[in-house]
Amino acid sequence: MIELPFTANGIITLTTDFGLSDPYAGIMKGVMLARHPLARLVDLTHQVPVFQPRLAGFWLARAWRYFPAGTVHLAVVDPGVGTERAMILMEAAGQVFVAPDNGLLNEVARLAPSGQWRSFTLSDLAHLQLPAPSQTFNGRDIFAPLVAEISANRFPPNQLGQLSDPPLRQVTTSREAGHIIAIDHFGNLITDIDAEHLQQFARPAIQFRGRLIPLHPTYGRAQAGQLLAVVNSWGTLEIALAQGSAALLLAASVGEAVRLVEAQ
Amino acid sequence: MIELPFTANGIITLTTDFGLSDPYAGIMKGVMLARHPLARLVDLTHQVPVFQPRLAGFWLARAWRYFPAGTVHLAVVDPGVGTERAMILMEAAGQVFVAPDNGLLNEVARLAPSGQWRSFTLSDLAHLQLPAPSQTFNGRDIFAPLVAEISANRFPPNQLGQLSDPPLRQVTTSREAGHIIAIDHFGNLITDIDAEHLQQFARPAIQFRGRLIPLHPTYGRAQAGQLLAVVNSWGTLEIALAQGSAALLLAASVGEAVRLVEAQ
Amino acid sequence: MIELPFTANGIITLTTDFGLSDPYAGIMKGVMLARHPLARLVDLTHQVPVFQPRLAGFWLARAWRYFPAGTVHLAVVDPGVGTERAMILMEAAGQVFVAPDNGLLNEVARLAPSGQWRSFTLSDLAHLQLPAPSQTFNGRDIFAPLVAEISANRFPPNQLGQLSDPPLRQVTTSREAGHIIAIDHFGNLITDIDAEHLQQFARPAIQFRGRLIPLHPTYGRAQAGQLLAVVNSWGTLEIALAQGSAALLLAASVGEAVRLVEAQ
Repeated sequence: MIELPFTANGIITLTTDFGLSDPYAGIMKGVMLARHPLARLVDLTHQVPVFQPRLAGFWLARAWRYFPAGTVHLAVVDPGVGTERAMILMEAAGQVFVAPDNGLLNEVARLAPSGQWRSFTLSDLAHLQLPAPSQTFNGRDIFAPLVAEISANRFPPNQLGQLSDPPLRQVTTSREAGHIIAIDHFGNLITDIDAEHLQQFARPAIQFRGRLIPLHPTYGRAQAGQLLAVVNSWGTLEIALAQGSAALLLAASVGEAVRLVEAQ
Repeated sequence: MIELPFTANGIITLTTDFGLSDPYAGIMKGVMLARHPLARLVDLTHQVPVFQPRLAGFWLARAWRYFPAGTVHLAVVDPGVGTERAMILMEAAGQVFVAPDNGLLNEVARLAPSGQWRSFTLSDLAHLQLPAPSQTFNGRDIFAPLVAEISANRFPPNQLGQLSDPPLRQVTTSREAGHIIAIDHFGNLITDIDAEHLQQFARPAIQFRGRLIPLHPTYGRAQAGQLLAVVNSWGTLEIALAQGSAALLLAASVGEAVRLVEAQ
Repeated sequence: MIELPFTANGIITLTTDFGLSDPYAGIMKGVMLARHPLARLVDLTHQVPVFQPRLAGFWLARAWRYFPAGTVHLAVVDPGVGTERAMILMEAAGQVFVAPDNGLLNEVARLAPSGQWRSFTLSDLAHLQLPAPSQTFNGRDIFAPLVAEISANRFPPNQLGQLSDPPLRQVTTSREAGHIIAIDHFGNLITDIDAEHLQQFARPAIQFRGRLIPLHPTYGRAQAGQLLAVVNSWGTLEIALAQGSAALLLAASVGEAVRLVEAQ
């Protein structure tokens, strides 16, 4: 496969744990617009649970493919800000991802086609003439100006820092057994069991805490108040409560075990 | 009245119950920008109480008139996603509204000038070459690409699906008696009593749970902590607490009865 | 210093206490786009605690400098809406700030270079041909159209209303003693003690409720669960909990006293 050089389209997405009550995300947008006035800025979410880079990665890994080639994705969940932790850039499928090097992009790496990874530190950005960065807000001082320059096509991402190895992709073995890996705004319990495993079962159901939850084609086909398993829009199985919150009903948590089984 | 053909201005508004902690709204924006890179996307709210299409309609019916002609409004509160429920498009006052056909647009229909209604299903969108939609996220798979095409002036809305009858407009009889129909971020209790009924009273007040709440010209004219009735910016009466939350003070709920009366 | 005439760049920021569950902010954007279709609208925050103009000013005073010259900042936290309170415009450092005249801009005035202040009322806006404003939502009816006209370079801000005196800048005396002036999304306790006072101490610490909290270079250098003092990205001292919330751990409130001292 011949990799074409990356050409930015001016779209930048933002994924952070900064919340919406303070202007931290807005300030990053000011920095970006100062360098790239025509950038089009799209919030993915600023409400990642604080200090949990992998949850940011979970959503970014499911969101990026809906953006056109040339998009730059910036994700900042950065409990190690101000330490010697490196920063990382990945280029894959004609899109660029920038984040602290703390595992945030691992799930993107697992789901995206293989791409080029580059590791960098502040010293690789000398020509951007950044002001001396604070020790606590690299999103504003380093990441925002960098992605603005990339999105303005003034900074070729393949010249940043050093080539590095991609994170190890987790080997997937049996996937009839899995876990709840995220809970969304509706209280749906998203699992890591791929829908492709359904074909092994005549009447598939999810087993959760010893209880069997039958598969339905969609939320709307179940009675209000009924628990159901459903193939979600990411192609994995989830547990839902029709017109309610499965997370509240079951008091369920990320990490709990689930299993795909034959209904009796 | 001669209806001019609709010409989009590139503005698309979004109203959903998707919340802000997951990237669902951001993903819809990616889909829209992939098809219409210069679209200007405005969030009305993503925090409609889940599964309550009519509350989405309440706010959209009060918001649309502040947007210029050519705007496309997309509203997705869709508990019936994945079932056979139809989708609906309304064109009125030079603007276009798109939503699931579940009552969401009824309040828009009640307050907007009469327009053209069209009912459609996935089979009416063949030429958009959509990927096979998921059973759970039509906002991403069907609605977002459709409104992007309309807003890019590549899909004339008057050629979509079939003409259909508008929802019946509710006949309003006595409106001195009404209800709380929404509670806003400030805790104001918004009623459906139109301000025009005030002229029948010398010293108007709202009666709520047997208590008389006097009319004031505005929030700022009352003492902090005082309950007041006021004509809100939508032209209906509401109950407010000066520099506080009437909803919290009164533990009030949507649906409770109110009445416009003469203060003693 | 020669003040150049203000030239808008099309960027408008919004800071309000309107929240995100109702479409109030979105409606203001509709009004702006109707008058200035190419405006680029950036949310700083809509979650200022309600009716607290000075907290809006706290964040705006720390955010504006990251935006390019030509930006117009609109801030609406307006408990006096509908009364005779004036409105105010400040032009400084090539940027324009518009707000109700209720102290909201005092902190901006304290931190910004000295600028020109103008006081205005509705009667100064006759040529904008505004519809009769509501008594409860001047953000929509007055402020949004005004800043759209300024940002479209159709309304020179130096011709608005009357020149007025700037708010008195607070004289700062000893600043080893200070207060918690804001708490952010991460639970960091932001104080008004400037970092420049650190050089008077060999081993500086913050004294809070009789407890000594030692200074660290950054969050990431402390053990998870450890309280630390740190110079934040605004150049003041704050109290943080590594990978946790200092506000929750200490049940701390805005207004509590802090003092910079020598660690024993």
